[in-house]
Amino acid sequence: MQKNMRGRAKKAGLPPGSLVHTGERKKGEVSISLIEYDASSLFESQLPGMDACFSFLDKQTVTWLNVDGLHDADLMSRIGSCFGLHPLVLEDVLSTDQRPKYEDFDDYLYIVVRMLRYDSDVMKVKAEQISVILSQKYVLTFQEGFAGDVFDSVRARLREDKGRIRKMGADYLAYTLLDTIVDNYFVILEQMGERIELLENELIANPNRKTLRMIHALRGDALFLRRTIWPLREVVNSFTRGDSPFITDATKVYLKDVYDHTIHAIDTLETYREMLAGMLDIYLSSMSNRLNEVMKVLTIIATIFMPLTFLAGVYGMNFEHMPELKWEWGYPAIWMIMIVIGLAMLAAFKRRKWL
Amino acid sequence: MQKNMRGRAKKAGLPPGSLVHTGERKKGEVSISLIEYDASSLFESQLPGMDACFSFLDKQTVTWLNVDGLHDADLMSRIGSCFGLHPLVLEDVLSTDQRPKYEDFDDYLYIVVRMLRYDSDVMKVKAEQISVILSQKYVLTFQEGFAGDVFDSVRARLREDKGRIRKMGADYLAYTLLDTIVDNYFVILEQMGERIELLENELIANPNRKTLRMIHALRGDALFLRRTIWPLREVVNSFTRGDSPFITDATKVYLKDVYDHTIHAIDTLETYREMLAGMLDIYLSSMSNRLNEVMKVLTIIATIFMPLTFLAGVYGMNFEHMPELKWEWGYPAIWMIMIVIGLAMLAAFKRRKWL
Amino acid sequence: MQKNMRGRAKKAGLPPGSLVHTGERKKGEVSISLIEYDASSLFESQLPGMDACFSFLDKQTVTWLNVDGLHDADLMSRIGSCFGLHPLVLEDVLSTDQRPKYEDFDDYLYIVVRMLRYDSDVMKVKAEQISVILSQKYVLTFQEGFAGDVFDSVRARLREDKGRIRKMGADYLAYTLLDTIVDNYFVILEQMGERIELLENELIANPNRKTLRMIHALRGDALFLRRTIWPLREVVNSFTRGDSPFITDATKVYLKDVYDHTIHAIDTLETYREMLAGMLDIYLSSMSNRLNEVMKVLTIIATIFMPLTFLAGVYGMNFEHMPELKWEWGYPAIWMIMIVIGLAMLAAFKRRKWL
Amino acid sequence: MQKNMRGRAKKAGLPPGSLVHTGERKKGEVSISLIEYDASSLFESQLPGMDACFSFLDKQTVTWLNVDGLHDADLMSRIGSCFGLHPLVLEDVLSTDQRPKYEDFDDYLYIVVRMLRYDSDVMKVKAEQISVILSQKYVLTFQEGFAGDVFDSVRARLREDKGRIRKMGADYLAYTLLDTIVDNYFVILEQMGERIELLENELIANPNRKTLRMIHALRGDALFLRRTIWPLREVVNSFTRGDSPFITDATKVYLKDVYDHTIHAIDTLETYREMLAGMLDIYLSSMSNRLNEVMKVLTIIATIFMPLTFLAGVYGMNFEHMPELKWEWGYPAIWMIMIVIGLAMLAAFKRRKWL
Amino acid sequence: MQKNMRGRAKKAGLPPGSLVHTGERKKGEVSISLIEYDASSLFESQLPGMDACFSFLDKQTVTWLNVDGLHDADLMSRIGSCFGLHPLVLEDVLSTDQRPKYEDFDDYLYIVVRMLRYDSDVMKVKAEQISVILSQKYVLTFQEGFAGDVFDSVRARLREDKGRIRKMGADYLAYTLLDTIVDNYFVILEQMGERIELLENELIANPNRKTLRMIHALRGDALFLRRTIWPLREVVNSFTRGDSPFITDATKVYLKDVYDHTIHAIDTLETYREMLAGMLDIYLSSMSNRLNEVMKVLTIIATIFMPLTFLAGVYGMNFEHMPELKWEWGYPAIWMIMIVIGLAMLAAFKRRKWL
Repeated sequence: MQKNMRGRAKKAGLPPGSLVHTGERKKGEVSISLIEYDASSLFESQLPGMDACFSFLDKQTVTWLNVDGLHDADLMSRIGSCFGLHPLVLEDVLSTDQRPKYEDFDDYLYIVVRMLRYDSDVMKVKAEQISVILSQKYVLTFQEGFAGDVFDSVRARLREDKGRIRKMGADYLAYTLLDTIVDNYFVILEQMGERIELLENELIANPNRKTLRMIHALRGDALFLRRTIWPLREVVNSFTRGDSPFITDATKVYLKDVYDHTIHAIDTLETYREMLAGMLDIYLSSMSNRLNEVMKVLTIIATIFMPLTFLAGVYGMNFEHMPELKWEWGYPAIWMIMIVIGLAMLAAFKRRKWL
Repeated sequence: MQKNMRGRAKKAGLPPGSLVHTGERKKGEVSISLIEYDASSLFESQLPGMDACFSFLDKQTVTWLNVDGLHDADLMSRIGSCFGLHPLVLEDVLSTDQRPKYEDFDDYLYIVVRMLRYDSDVMKVKAEQISVILSQKYVLTFQEGFAGDVFDSVRARLREDKGRIRKMGADYLAYTLLDTIVDNYFVILEQMGERIELLENELIANPNRKTLRMIHALRGDALFLRRTIWPLREVVNSFTRGDSPFITDATKVYLKDVYDHTIHAIDTLETYREMLAGMLDIYLSSMSNRLNEVMKVLTIIATIFMPLTFLAGVYGMNFEHMPELKWEWGYPAIWMIMIVIGLAMLAAFKRRKWL
Repeated sequence: MQKNMRGRAKKAGLPPGSLVHTGERKKGEVSISLIEYDASSLFESQLPGMDACFSFLDKQTVTWLNVDGLHDADLMSRIGSCFGLHPLVLEDVLSTDQRPKYEDFDDYLYIVVRMLRYDSDVMKVKAEQISVILSQKYVLTFQEGFAGDVFDSVRARLREDKGRIRKMGADYLAYTLLDTIVDNYFVILEQMGERIELLENELIANPNRKTLRMIHALRGDALFLRRTIWPLREVVNSFTRGDSPFITDATKVYLKDVYDHTIHAIDTLETYREMLAGMLDIYLSSMSNRLNEVMKVLTIIATIFMPLTFLAGVYGMNFEHMPELKWEWGYPAIWMIMIVIGLAMLAAFKRRKWL
Repeated sequence: MQKNMRGRAKKAGLPPGSLVHTGERKKGEVSISLIEYDASSLFESQLPGMDACFSFLDKQTVTWLNVDGLHDADLMSRIGSCFGLHPLVLEDVLSTDQRPKYEDFDDYLYIVVRMLRYDSDVMKVKAEQISVILSQKYVLTFQEGFAGDVFDSVRARLREDKGRIRKMGADYLAYTLLDTIVDNYFVILEQMGERIELLENELIANPNRKTLRMIHALRGDALFLRRTIWPLREVVNSFTRGDSPFITDATKVYLKDVYDHTIHAIDTLETYREMLAGMLDIYLSSMSNRLNEVMKVLTIIATIFMPLTFLAGVYGMNFEHMPELKWEWGYPAIWMIMIVIGLAMLAAFKRRKWL
Repeated sequence: MQKNMRGRAKKAGLPPGSLVHTGERKKGEVSISLIEYDASSLFESQLPGMDACFSFLDKQTVTWLNVDGLHDADLMSRIGSCFGLHPLVLEDVLSTDQRPKYEDFDDYLYIVVRMLRYDSDVMKVKAEQISVILSQKYVLTFQEGFAGDVFDSVRARLREDKGRIRKMGADYLAYTLLDTIVDNYFVILEQMGERIELLENELIANPNRKTLRMIHALRGDALFLRRTIWPLREVVNSFTRGDSPFITDATKVYLKDVYDHTIHAIDTLETYREMLAGMLDIYLSSMSNRLNEVMKVLTIIATIFMPLTFLAGVYGMNFEHMPELKWEWGYPAIWMIMIVIGLAMLAAFKRRKWL
């Protein structure tokens, strides 16, 4: 979680608009992919760089430019000037520690969201920042590019002309991308739900240190997800209700659907958080319970054997004048007494429901 | 609870509007029942399928089409096209993991609610999704169909012409269905209330591991109910205050009543949640209390017998020169001393109010 | 608390407007009292039934009809038709498990509130539902009639012409009734405050199981009061701010005062709830504290006597070659050693501040 | 805290506007002081009673009438009629258990606030009700008069013509009084802060029963302050934003300042409350910690000496055929074994970091 | 934290507008630095005092006057009268215990914020009050001057003409100062995040008293930060949305960015607070866990050795008639029995999963 901050802290003192990539991925190639499509045609290519700008004046197609990898500041600033992006937008695209947000710059809409994936190596949920810029005729997307391209399924749908995506405009493309990201949250949430269910069974069967540690880890994950998903609600809502001319009414119906899904995800997450909080309470109560049991065993043992040992000690004393020692039935008698005492103790515990 | 998610997660990557039934009931027949009525007549039939569409142009009756079972995607899409439903609506009808919601598509209103039932086998509350589509002249209802038809009582009222239901329009029918569902919540809540009351008695009389487990289970149920009932408030409110032409003012008075009932249910649920939280606190305090008692017993026993055993040990030593051993009254004297020590200890405990 | 639900659950499946009395009082006579007054005259009578309706057309007096006992459904429906009450209103009057609410039916205002009384037999606060219907010239009140007539003081004020009540209209009468009910809450709250104060003293002096049970019971009561008083705020507020023509500006000033009192009651209740929550924390901490003390006693005793008993055991061994046993000063020496060990242990505990 | 309620409860059943003084101070003289001033002159006197009313028609001065002591109901009602106060206002002035509030009666504004003082005898914060009535040309203040006159500093400023107070109107005087009261809250809060700081040091150095009791007491005080200060925010806000003609824009800037101070006080109080809640958590954790330490000591002692005592017991048995007893080196050997066992145990504890 | 209060409490009773410096830094020189700049030129100087006022009538440059050190009341009042500041503003500048706030005095805007720094000596976060006054052509800043000048980086940017700062007006300068302060919060937050991460590792590896104390300290810091950062949101929001003519639309885009950063900081802080709360829960559970382990060790030892010691005690008794003592195989037999008992106990513990 701390890594989020490092970027921001690193930049303290720099003028606003400074292009500093604050993410972790610094190497590897930056890949730029271009798709232009309309209902009848689709053109796809990998761009080597951004040497010339596009002209959208007379185009009827929708253009989708996707940039994978953000560490080439020169390239970014060239893209920025090509599309006329505000310096703060470019800065935000590169600062991969943004809170999800939506901003309306008359010429285009700027949306920051976060893509989640479960890193099974460290058993933690990780996030990657995705910036989407939407205008009348184009969509720009910027990914950090950790986990391969998350938009492959959208690309496939475009190529195969599935659903209505090719028939609609750039706003519908932006919606589809958002929808893909939010659908992915449910994959993460389902996984989390399964871990919680497992944990719950363990909690009831055999709570131990590991259970505690797992509850702690899951709470950390839930907190992380919360920071990612909650602000999205606001983002999608602004997107849906905004009066930007780039978004058609037909698409708004779909965006409303994404909004509902986001609410559903938040709902689920909050339920998980409550369940985890409840589990910690149960854990603490179980521990307390168990301590009680342990102490009862100890107390029972001590209460039975301490008096008996004392008695044995008494007849182990070496006084010269101890008449009992000479009685013929002294030894069996003392055994009798001891057994009676022991049974009486057990009966007393039984009455107290300790056994 | 996790099952809710699986549906959504399964669909990640599919285009919106894909008809995938995400519920669990996959087999059995789908039954379609049709009722057409007005104040003077009622026509009822079971439809074998959806081969032809209805025409509502010149009808004066109210048509209620109820579909039990959602796993026949073909049938669903035919119904969808007959009634001109938006693809997202059809998708939502089939995704049985929806959050209760209300949407106004100019031609019809779409409402998703959840019907609750207590499954005594697993001792958990279960939910079933019910979709209601209301237009000027018809009401469509879609049920998963787990627990028989939940609207039997409404059907009986229609047949027997009880109350004002036959005299009023489709909106009043939709209200009646909603009212039936919300009334049913109170059955579930009452049941829950009884379990809480039982638990409370047990908590005071004899708290144990089972009590803890039951508190945990009830909290899980309460959390589940919460997810079901809370969003309903918003749904009924939108329904009541919406300016849809399909809802008459006369019906709005009744809808306001359903709204009050929903608030009442939420109120009750929140009270239960607070009671359960309070019970856990009491449980923990009881355990702590009991541990104290156990430890007191142990401490009393140990404090009395340890010094005595020590004394007995002393006179069990084999030193050659131990004058006490030879005294004639040594043995009775040591008994005296031991008894005095024991009584003194008991008195000390009495003074500390440990006995 | 569960009883509240039973009524609602019992009615699941019935058409709306069904007159089913859900309260507990089923027997005894229903008493109907009538008061008609203006500034100069007052007419009072007990009605045997509701054989004829009233006509208010040319009356200048204020009419107050009070019904004590709700189990005569016929009578209720006759009253309903006399005064032109909506079926849902009549249903709500009889369902004595209503949440306090305010509704404006153009011809009259309908208010549901709850009267509290402390039932010292079961040591719990109980509630009784009071329905008030206010129109231009009359006030109808419906009580379950458990605890005698709660409005005796108002009746007395009317008869004796105390204050301005006779000079003002039906709205002022309704205000007076509300004011009486809210004032009564303070009696209940004061009682609760006294029980909390007592409990607090006990908590500090000598916390025990009974303290815990009393905290639990008081929290239950506070929860119950909360459900009763919180919604009242909304009710009084709607009443005060509503634009009903039945309420004059002069009366609104007084209603504002009732509103302030309601806020004050809520404030006090929330303070109590916080105090009770705090007391549970203190209880748990006290228990933990006390356990510490008990364990210290045990540890001190064990730490002193275990080594000594061991030593005594050593010199009780029967080895043939144990030179110490033969020393003349062996026995006094071992006593010395034991005493030194004991004192050293005590000193160590002293240093650790355990003594 | 309960005393607050008693007043209200005592009045249940009385008609509104009944003049019953609900405070505790019933004796002593009521003192009425009058100050009339403008920029150039100041007239000050003690009134013996309220025999005649004032006329403000042609006065250019500001009149400040301060009443110390509220138990003379006759006097109060004469003042009420002189200044044309609404019966409910007079009732509220005398009911010294009011929640701070602001009311605009066209002819005057009525403000209730509470003055705090720390009563070092019972180590609790106490409150006194202050009513302020502001009109165009006069300010009325009513105090219970427990703690001397709290407005002495304002009086001094008036006499010495310090600051701008003499140059401005009645609204500025009312502001000054409010400001004095709010400033006084900071004295109380500072004192509280010091007690919390002391407690915090003790909590870390040596938490004990007294610490617990002090935390409890401070939480009680914080709860009390909260009830006093929170509603003030609303009061000052209404006062500042109200559109009363009695308040000039120049004064509003100053009132905004009082509002900021109130927010600051609330902020501080909430911080204190969080600190106290945190301290209780720490206390509980400390206790748990300490118990662990105690138990470790006990366990170490028992684990070392129980096996050794057992061994000594074995060689204290009186079997005839125990070869070890006859070995020449048996006794030193058993000592060796015991020492080795003891050291091994210690080493095991060391490894587990218990030592 | 208490120091915040002292200032306010010290001033109780003084007239508003009294210039009392409530901060701690009382000595050292007050330094006044002046920068005047436009796109093409920059003039910088240290002023010895404030002997003459500035005239802004015909100036085209932006003037930035920064005052380091607030304890010279005379100087402050001269500055106040030069720039026509309201007495309350001057008072607030000197009261270094202000809550961050924004006020619009038609002629200028007044902003109070707090600069944070981590004082590694006492291991606590400290704050310093910064007042910013913004008008059309000038910016005034007042610092307490503890930690050197925090605006050095801004000054450097001005001198070197980096970014667009020289090309824009006074509002952009104010924005830059705000941005510098907020960016600095992230440095503090990152530091805090690192301490939390360290603590988390320790909590899982080896929770002890020190861990508890550190959690407590961090919670205190988080509470302190909260009081500083939360109100800033409101301040920046008012600043951004205010309709002051001093703020251009171009600058508002940048202010919106500062607002986003503030939200981000709040978000992070709240996450930290939740993490710390979760850590305390885990700590308590760990302690409980550990106690369980300790008690198990004790119980196992006691349960094994108490019966054995008892047996040894029995055969240490001195009865004359104890046949077993004379059996030839008595001694080995009793060893056998003891070993069997011991192993049986161990097996029982194994079955209970205590080992």
